[in-house]
Amino acid sequence: MQRKLRMGMVGGSRGSFIGNVHRMAAALDGQFELVCGAFSSDPARAIERGAEWFIRRERVYASYAEMFDAERKLEARERMDFVSIVTPNHLHFPIASAAFEAGFHVVCDKPLAHNVKEATALVKQAERRDLLCCVTYNYTGYPMIRQARALARGGKLGKLRKIIVEYAQGWLATRIEAAGQKQALWRTDPSQSGAAGCIGDIGSHAQNLAEYVTGLRITELCADLTTFVHGRKLDDDGNILLRFNEGARGVLLSSQVAVGEENRLALRIYGERGALEWQQQEPNTLVVNWVDQPGQILRTGADHGFAQPAKDATRLPAGHPEGFVEAFANIYREFGLALDARLHGKKKLRGGHDFPTAHDGLRGMKFIEAAVRSAATGRKWISLR
Amino acid sequence: MQRKLRMGMVGGSRGSFIGNVHRMAAALDGQFELVCGAFSSDPARAIERGAEWFIRRERVYASYAEMFDAERKLEARERMDFVSIVTPNHLHFPIASAAFEAGFHVVCDKPLAHNVKEATALVKQAERRDLLCCVTYNYTGYPMIRQARALARGGKLGKLRKIIVEYAQGWLATRIEAAGQKQALWRTDPSQSGAAGCIGDIGSHAQNLAEYVTGLRITELCADLTTFVHGRKLDDDGNILLRFNEGARGVLLSSQVAVGEENRLALRIYGERGALEWQQQEPNTLVVNWVDQPGQILRTGADHGFAQPAKDATRLPAGHPEGFVEAFANIYREFGLALDARLHGKKKLRGGHDFPTAHDGLRGMKFIEAAVRSAATGRKWISLR
Amino acid sequence: MQRKLRMGMVGGSRGSFIGNVHRMAAALDGQFELVCGAFSSDPARAIERGAEWFIRRERVYASYAEMFDAERKLEARERMDFVSIVTPNHLHFPIASAAFEAGFHVVCDKPLAHNVKEATALVKQAERRDLLCCVTYNYTGYPMIRQARALARGGKLGKLRKIIVEYAQGWLATRIEAAGQKQALWRTDPSQSGAAGCIGDIGSHAQNLAEYVTGLRITELCADLTTFVHGRKLDDDGNILLRFNEGARGVLLSSQVAVGEENRLALRIYGERGALEWQQQEPNTLVVNWVDQPGQILRTGADHGFAQPAKDATRLPAGHPEGFVEAFANIYREFGLALDARLHGKKKLRGGHDFPTAHDGLRGMKFIEAAVRSAATGRKWISLR
Amino acid sequence: MQRKLRMGMVGGSRGSFIGNVHRMAAALDGQFELVCGAFSSDPARAIERGAEWFIRRERVYASYAEMFDAERKLEARERMDFVSIVTPNHLHFPIASAAFEAGFHVVCDKPLAHNVKEATALVKQAERRDLLCCVTYNYTGYPMIRQARALARGGKLGKLRKIIVEYAQGWLATRIEAAGQKQALWRTDPSQSGAAGCIGDIGSHAQNLAEYVTGLRITELCADLTTFVHGRKLDDDGNILLRFNEGARGVLLSSQVAVGEENRLALRIYGERGALEWQQQEPNTLVVNWVDQPGQILRTGADHGFAQPAKDATRLPAGHPEGFVEAFANIYREFGLALDARLHGKKKLRGGHDFPTAHDGLRGMKFIEAAVRSAATGRKWISLR
Repeated sequence: MQRKLRMGMVGGSRGSFIGNVHRMAAALDGQFELVCGAFSSDPARAIERGAEWFIRRERVYASYAEMFDAERKLEARERMDFVSIVTPNHLHFPIASAAFEAGFHVVCDKPLAHNVKEATALVKQAERRDLLCCVTYNYTGYPMIRQARALARGGKLGKLRKIIVEYAQGWLATRIEAAGQKQALWRTDPSQSGAAGCIGDIGSHAQNLAEYVTGLRITELCADLTTFVHGRKLDDDGNILLRFNEGARGVLLSSQVAVGEENRLALRIYGERGALEWQQQEPNTLVVNWVDQPGQILRTGADHGFAQPAKDATRLPAGHPEGFVEAFANIYREFGLALDARLHGKKKLRGGHDFPTAHDGLRGMKFIEAAVRSAATGRKWISLR
Repeated sequence: MQRKLRMGMVGGSRGSFIGNVHRMAAALDGQFELVCGAFSSDPARAIERGAEWFIRRERVYASYAEMFDAERKLEARERMDFVSIVTPNHLHFPIASAAFEAGFHVVCDKPLAHNVKEATALVKQAERRDLLCCVTYNYTGYPMIRQARALARGGKLGKLRKIIVEYAQGWLATRIEAAGQKQALWRTDPSQSGAAGCIGDIGSHAQNLAEYVTGLRITELCADLTTFVHGRKLDDDGNILLRFNEGARGVLLSSQVAVGEENRLALRIYGERGALEWQQQEPNTLVVNWVDQPGQILRTGADHGFAQPAKDATRLPAGHPEGFVEAFANIYREFGLALDARLHGKKKLRGGHDFPTAHDGLRGMKFIEAAVRSAATGRKWISLR
Repeated sequence: MQRKLRMGMVGGSRGSFIGNVHRMAAALDGQFELVCGAFSSDPARAIERGAEWFIRRERVYASYAEMFDAERKLEARERMDFVSIVTPNHLHFPIASAAFEAGFHVVCDKPLAHNVKEATALVKQAERRDLLCCVTYNYTGYPMIRQARALARGGKLGKLRKIIVEYAQGWLATRIEAAGQKQALWRTDPSQSGAAGCIGDIGSHAQNLAEYVTGLRITELCADLTTFVHGRKLDDDGNILLRFNEGARGVLLSSQVAVGEENRLALRIYGERGALEWQQQEPNTLVVNWVDQPGQILRTGADHGFAQPAKDATRLPAGHPEGFVEAFANIYREFGLALDARLHGKKKLRGGHDFPTAHDGLRGMKFIEAAVRSAATGRKWISLR
Repeated sequence: MQRKLRMGMVGGSRGSFIGNVHRMAAALDGQFELVCGAFSSDPARAIERGAEWFIRRERVYASYAEMFDAERKLEARERMDFVSIVTPNHLHFPIASAAFEAGFHVVCDKPLAHNVKEATALVKQAERRDLLCCVTYNYTGYPMIRQARALARGGKLGKLRKIIVEYAQGWLATRIEAAGQKQALWRTDPSQSGAAGCIGDIGSHAQNLAEYVTGLRITELCADLTTFVHGRKLDDDGNILLRFNEGARGVLLSSQVAVGEENRLALRIYGERGALEWQQQEPNTLVVNWVDQPGQILRTGADHGFAQPAKDATRLPAGHPEGFVEAFANIYREFGLALDARLHGKKKLRGGHDFPTAHDGLRGMKFIEAAVRSAATGRKWISLR
């Protein structure tokens, strides 16, 4: 790269979990510079955050509209290159749309939008404007997930038969939104979160991960969504039977009331000749089983003939644990390579630009809508085609 | 006990996995004596087995009919007290029925029968004759399962919300029945195994375990059963959404084509205040999570204020692993206590006689039939009431 | 075998942990029959135990002397074939010696004797009388330990470099012997336990396991033994540097005051090309690492080209956990095969008669004495040759 | 902070593992800016690195001497605040000494120097000049290590009895230095690495971690150091008996020839009432055992009443794994807080400035020298006072 890529941020004031994650992920490899932000609708909080992150005062904006407007007018050598959107869900669409309109590339937290219609519009808008749109399905950034993908798609496991994917958390086991917990408040509010609660917030990560690793697509599903906590308006738990193309079957489990679970995103894939098991809370281990030899333990950073994308996503020798931020930073890194190529007319680099796009975001919305529709009907299978 | 209890066996010749398990389970505590058997329809094999197990030659019988007839005529001080039935599934019903008819108590491997009708008949027959019938859902015999039950039923976890139970094996991932593997042959043959393959053979263990530990009952289910191996006549994989009484939800996963899985029977229970996790392959550990304090590790044999049934099921101090045979032996031990009480007019002992009965066997048949029915319909929920 | 082998027992009354273990281990495979015992010096307790184990009243003896005398006079077809000695340590020598004198084969719990002198005498006595003597270093009975031995001795790991063996327990972390806990009482009493506490009781298991698996011999050691609990007379903790023949080095750690540890016997072996890790509390897993390929997970019962001794020591398919009693039973089984061969003039069977003998017991005494000697000196290395 | 802290770097060109780690650790929280470097004695490589890290060309220096000289002459608002030294060991002393001489604060990778004499000189020099000196014993930066320290020092575990600390790697199992592997080359060369190989490179981390967590000091040791790989000049394996003040005992194990081990730094601490177990490769879990209740699982980010230093060292909610870089960044963060306070006259902040200093570096050198001395003598105990 010839220079650091300049990043703006919408959202991310104090109390935002994901804003700080994006900031750290962008910082890790030294390839991005956070130059401006519309961190909060509360000016004092916005300024506080700007100071904390050493943003020049004049580039801490009162709103995303003001920011896009002001940045557009800056000279090319100063102007932000792209904006990262880290607000509650319901704001993703208007902000991303305005960013595209103003000619900025976008990194948007998932879900991309509130519904399929909005997501479709964003896909089209980005394409029309020829702008990059990265949707941070961050769990695809783990090195062992990239190795899993190489194994699963490369035929080593044989034809895939069964996929079990689970995302379980316990933090919403009680009604903490009633006590004003900020993260819980918007996630359990349909006007901010969308038609789905748990299945949208984390179930969609599970869907994305399963499809990313296997290359298969969910064709039909049968969902049982539940709201366990009294007074909550959205589902906080869901179990879904899955059918994939090419005859694979599976299950997606998701919960935010699973007491004691922290962030248990787990994936298992069974093929005719081999099988994989991975768990996000110990992300540097990938267990591979074989129909005719002992199980193997693959480890991030080990020199075991890994696929190039797994190597590219690794920063440290084996045994030096790489975590959540590092995986998130891999998404930023791939996006940065693509953006750099775009900005400076380079060719595609080795390993491609492997980051989730608006298409993946749209796919996620389709999954969420199908799950909600399935939960409301007595029909067994709902198509996702 | 005043004397060892005298046991006969039907089935269990060479190549039988479960026959030897019953023999070891009965032997472990020294309270049973194997006195006779109809081990095989092949006389040479029957005699070979009898010799190996030191059964007197005249009590190695050519058939169960001959055995029941001959034993009935022996003097009370010699005659077998009960018969253990360890044949393929389709023979459970006729043999158990004949045993009851001849006045013998019965230990029968699961599933109890081929269908609900047969199972119902056995329940009634046993009741009419006032005979004991134990069905070896052996996984309920693990100490930490008994502790889990005490926690789940005793209210410590709060109202139960979600149950995830899985039983995964990989040994049928290829068509080994075509090569004549004996265990595979009868399990994949509808005339010997019944209407279900995987879901009957191991899914029913999962159903039993979930209901045993929680005290809840599955009221509705939605099943997706699959035959992955070409040419196989019965399902070898199944995923089932579950609804329990009292509002709990769950999932049952079962597979015999899950490459690399050995005998992964796993149970998780989430309540409003606490949660449990247990896995059969490391059965001496029970992880308990709480909504407001760090997770705990309960261990077989540790002095952690365990419930009496957990203590009663434990033979060794913590750290001396107790395994599959020990758990199986606990079923035999409880059955033995009940039988001894029956034979010698004793009162019920401390801890009750906690072994699965014909009622549990019938329940299992209902589950299997509902799963098969569900898999064949486009309706979402099938009632199990 | 033509008949069950007839076993007598000295020790093993209520409160004895190891007596019941020997009984279960002998019972498991149906090849032994417990026919007589001198269970306790307290006649009431002896009778109670005899009744519980269904021993005929006339063969429950008041003392081992009486037992050996009476049994010797019985007819050959009734007389016990061997005696299992499960008393506190200080009685092993006189009882074993008397048993040999009376012409009985012996199974003796470890340590074989109180000191090297006694152990040497027993070795000689058994050889002179041509009697079998099995010393129950039971942890060598695990299938994965036998596989580990095949790997370590077979050259697959390359030249062995480093051995780390540990045996940690926490049950003596407080002075429970002061409260009269029976197991603690004799183990902390030099007159019953010998010159060493922890290092004799469990450290010697660790020494035996390391030498058994590797085939190497400890040539020098440097020990730091400690008594942490005030008022205790014997060491309750020890750390020992080890030097083996052929240039291997190692460490032996042992403790009975390691709070929270149950029975953590763990072995690691590092060679030039590969390495092994095993832990007794999850005994069915053996992790094998390689210098040039991913680590592998070997599992009891899996069909992974295991060595014959590993297969012979396995009763169940993979995933059906085999535990402490099963491993102990493997020692009995091998002893039984040897005894049967002796009694009935058979040739040696496949797999040999792999049980620890009086020679291993003597080796253990030498290790214990060297450790105690080392702990008392300022010299760094004490020879064990 | 009012501004980002300006960092220079000596070392860290391509092929340097630790240079990139320091860069990432400093970048993560956005509080440091890498402004200059003397990355390599090879000008082309230095320039390449500077470009990659977006350092202005004129601040990429040909040598540390040139850098210190040039930076000293810059205006205060531009000049680097401190230098990070990430060269091979033998250069730590001259560079740190020159940095102090030029008035710069220092972050130095461990070991601080080549021997006790040099380290002592640096301690004195830093004190005389009143400059900060941070030595990156980075493993103390893990949140669960800080929680462990709070538990161990706070008395919750009772009086500490036994400490087992191990640092095992396998990457030097073969003679890769002969093939020119850069990391191996200098580490196995006494002129660059110092008097010790393995025990200096990683054993000293283990010593530091044990003393950091417990607050105890090693008073005596007895070391067995070995060079297993033929032709290597320094130890590649070591086992050391430890005696601490207050009567605690322990063992330190260290190896770089432990095939299959990646970076297994593990710590166990046993007290009279409780015990801790932690392993660096899964750093977010701390197992706590108690003498009278079930073991607990503490997890980074969980809300379990953790000590403030553990909370301060945590960036993400539980279940979002924090890894090696995050822990390293915690050292930088604490150093940054101290430096900021020094530069801007602030008071000490909450939690103190918890980073390892030159005193810890000197302590490490004393340990290394004692271990080497012990390995060469036949005397059992070498004093470390």
